[in-house]
Amino acid sequence: MTQSGIKLYYKNATSEALDQEHGIGLDQLNAMGDRLTSSISKMNREEEDKPAYRSLPYDPDTPERVKELASNLQEQCENLVILGIGGSALGNIALQTALNPYMYNLDKSQRPGPRLFVLDNIDPEQMGSFLHWADDKLDKTVFNVISRSGRTTETVAQFMLVRHLLRHKFGDDGYQERVVITTNVSKAGALLQIAKKEKLACLEIPPGVGGRFSVLSAVGLFSAAMCGIDIDLLLAGARDMDTRVCCGEPLKNPAAIIAAINYYFYNHGKRISVMMPYSYQLKDLADWYRQLWAESLGKAEDLKASEVHVGPTPIKALGATDQHSQIQLYREGPNDKLFTFLQVNNFDRDCQIGPAPDSASELRFLAGKHLSTLLNSEKKATEYALLESKRPCLTVLFDRVDAYTVGQFIYLYEVATSFAGALFGVNPYDQPAVELGKEATFALMGKPGDEYEDFARKIRSVTDIDKAYLV
Amino acid sequence: MTQSGIKLYYKNATSEALDQEHGIGLDQLNAMGDRLTSSISKMNREEEDKPAYRSLPYDPDTPERVKELASNLQEQCENLVILGIGGSALGNIALQTALNPYMYNLDKSQRPGPRLFVLDNIDPEQMGSFLHWADDKLDKTVFNVISRSGRTTETVAQFMLVRHLLRHKFGDDGYQERVVITTNVSKAGALLQIAKKEKLACLEIPPGVGGRFSVLSAVGLFSAAMCGIDIDLLLAGARDMDTRVCCGEPLKNPAAIIAAINYYFYNHGKRISVMMPYSYQLKDLADWYRQLWAESLGKAEDLKASEVHVGPTPIKALGATDQHSQIQLYREGPNDKLFTFLQVNNFDRDCQIGPAPDSASELRFLAGKHLSTLLNSEKKATEYALLESKRPCLTVLFDRVDAYTVGQFIYLYEVATSFAGALFGVNPYDQPAVELGKEATFALMGKPGDEYEDFARKIRSVTDIDKAYLV
Repeated sequence: MTQSGIKLYYKNATSEALDQEHGIGLDQLNAMGDRLTSSISKMNREEEDKPAYRSLPYDPDTPERVKELASNLQEQCENLVILGIGGSALGNIALQTALNPYMYNLDKSQRPGPRLFVLDNIDPEQMGSFLHWADDKLDKTVFNVISRSGRTTETVAQFMLVRHLLRHKFGDDGYQERVVITTNVSKAGALLQIAKKEKLACLEIPPGVGGRFSVLSAVGLFSAAMCGIDIDLLLAGARDMDTRVCCGEPLKNPAAIIAAINYYFYNHGKRISVMMPYSYQLKDLADWYRQLWAESLGKAEDLKASEVHVGPTPIKALGATDQHSQIQLYREGPNDKLFTFLQVNNFDRDCQIGPAPDSASELRFLAGKHLSTLLNSEKKATEYALLESKRPCLTVLFDRVDAYTVGQFIYLYEVATSFAGALFGVNPYDQPAVELGKEATFALMGKPGDEYEDFARKIRSVTDIDKAYLV
Repeated sequence: MTQSGIKLYYKNATSEALDQEHGIGLDQLNAMGDRLTSSISKMNREEEDKPAYRSLPYDPDTPERVKELASNLQEQCENLVILGIGGSALGNIALQTALNPYMYNLDKSQRPGPRLFVLDNIDPEQMGSFLHWADDKLDKTVFNVISRSGRTTETVAQFMLVRHLLRHKFGDDGYQERVVITTNVSKAGALLQIAKKEKLACLEIPPGVGGRFSVLSAVGLFSAAMCGIDIDLLLAGARDMDTRVCCGEPLKNPAAIIAAINYYFYNHGKRISVMMPYSYQLKDLADWYRQLWAESLGKAEDLKASEVHVGPTPIKALGATDQHSQIQLYREGPNDKLFTFLQVNNFDRDCQIGPAPDSASELRFLAGKHLSTLLNSEKKATEYALLESKRPCLTVLFDRVDAYTVGQFIYLYEVATSFAGALFGVNPYDQPAVELGKEATFALMGKPGDEYEDFARKIRSVTDIDKAYLV
């Protein structure tokens, strides 16, 4: 077991580091923490109040089933393709970027498993380009189709496309060998029906685990295991974090502090929450967070059915790159953002800067230094500059980036989201507003039924182009 | 010359489509337009008020010089690496994603030029993974080092690393053959000094063209030409748009309407501007826009040196993917966003959805349809759902995605940014707030000088970890 870990550092969001006007006081943080005490104990009880995702790191069966299936498939599989969208893709992408090398897909020597492609859209150009390449490689390609409901339109459409292709090329048996379905088996979604009828390998998503909380289920674990990621270590990290976020003293509980500080600043005019990793590997965890935070906390009604229209807007930025894109706005624009940096203390790989050319002696101070030193100096420089502009900053410190710390991070932010839901007084597990768009898509795609025909006419009356407004 | 083009559709941001409270009235739009009339004529005059970037599509020499250099290098070059950051990378990435296939780097049959890698960061893991792969391919690799000032720390550090590697491997001549410097030749930056001394190929960035406005200079054109993009068509698209954004009647000028509508909604509580392409190809143009908009408009002081702290926060989202991540927030959260969709009417490549399995007859309505139909139906469905929630929507319609329409789009948004700067009353061409972080980085990296030593101590007193706040 690795000894590495992650820590939350919050001084630079407090009035101690900023001032009374711009930072949160410890008394205010304590008061917020008190409001969380009951939520913490409630969400830790072994009963209905405990969200389903919190059991995932303790599931004894899924990791074994996933590893067994992966080891059966790994030998014949040179390409693994995820067909999924949203919570059925973002976690997979985040794990892959965090725990496998940048050149994984291009460099066989850096790749312990198959190439991984996460096709989380229905773009015809993207899919067309991929299939053109894959055409003579389908023999050694496995498709993992992920949809919790088993009826996600985009995923089902992709699946129908690929199913037709594989059956045409390899017949029924060859098709079956190359498809793994991941879905909720307690609901009778289309994918489950098909999997049963057509005898496809099937991985279960436990009931009650929402898409955005599902990365530590078979949803995220299967592609990770296929690509050589240590899923046991990932889950061990999550379990370690579980003990820390169960702590009933809010100021010793990192998830409670994240929730409290975010909630405080939201109510003090900072409705934008920027997550800014100073690590290429962690960049897609910020994207995963973006869904988790937005979809869980962006709600029209609170738990008492009052209209509230709350929810911070999460933004992903990448250090040092986005210093050259966003920092001008972040420092001088409206003071409406809370910043959360992700910082890596020890990189597994490093690069040394060469000597300065004779014709540019002013560069000598960089010669012989390491990129890791430069990257972390830029993080501190940016944090310093933001503090000078009175902008609050949190940092999640990673001792190193490995499966253990990534498991810790995922679990930390999932629980922080639950706690933030409690403070905002909203249900962090539903997403009622996405239904209308789904129904509208059905209507426009010609789903049978009079109500859909009327609905399609209504939509077109709004979206058809009125040339008077076209320039 | 292609006949395709782009159009702006703005009805669904008006009170006609929404209501008085939530949309902009035509009278208000007209009033805003009147405020822009003088800016339009001022920025069109052939004198000092005309921003330097507006001459780029008319530069007779650069495209020829770029194509000549590209054709000299193309044969020996299998990998082109951009070392640059911010405005010296985002445009290159945007052009490549828009105008070359998804599988470009992996599939030789879909690639008319070398593989392209844009290393726009100083991450040791990313760079280490890349160099590990590239080690035995450096012979056929060209590095294009891009920095307007010629002294961008990240880029210069990368360059020193690569220079050392190439000289060690190939000697001075071999090194020279594999490096192209792109920089402002009117400033004596370190890169220019080195290029002259070491006889490196050099491309010029015209004086006065800021990084975020430089994609149509040699900055963006060289990698595009190397990768088989028709840069003449790109510039023709920009020139076509130039005639449209010169129009002195604001309601016939798409750049003026974009600026006016954005400014209006910013002042009506919508400080977040979401650009949401429904096209994988266009996704990185939204990232390019994110820099353009944030860095140009996010300013502490207006032109009269009054403290204003203005600036919309631009966000990139991707349709249909982000429907499953952000739409819950966008519809039900605070009504604080303006949406700009990018829609493609004709895709060059399409994919047909296969038949529905017998066991899932409810999917039959999708069978035989095309992904392009589904994707555009989802765009309309999302627009409809947002309008139901009283959120204003613009759409930029692309007849198709090609070099011509991409050139149009780039130029449209550059000029819209200039106009928005005029409405906000700020200088859209400077970025004073990024200096402090640069200086702080110098200090932490040990740049010589007493003032840097003192400064480093000051920064560390703020950024060193205080264990009382570590959880």
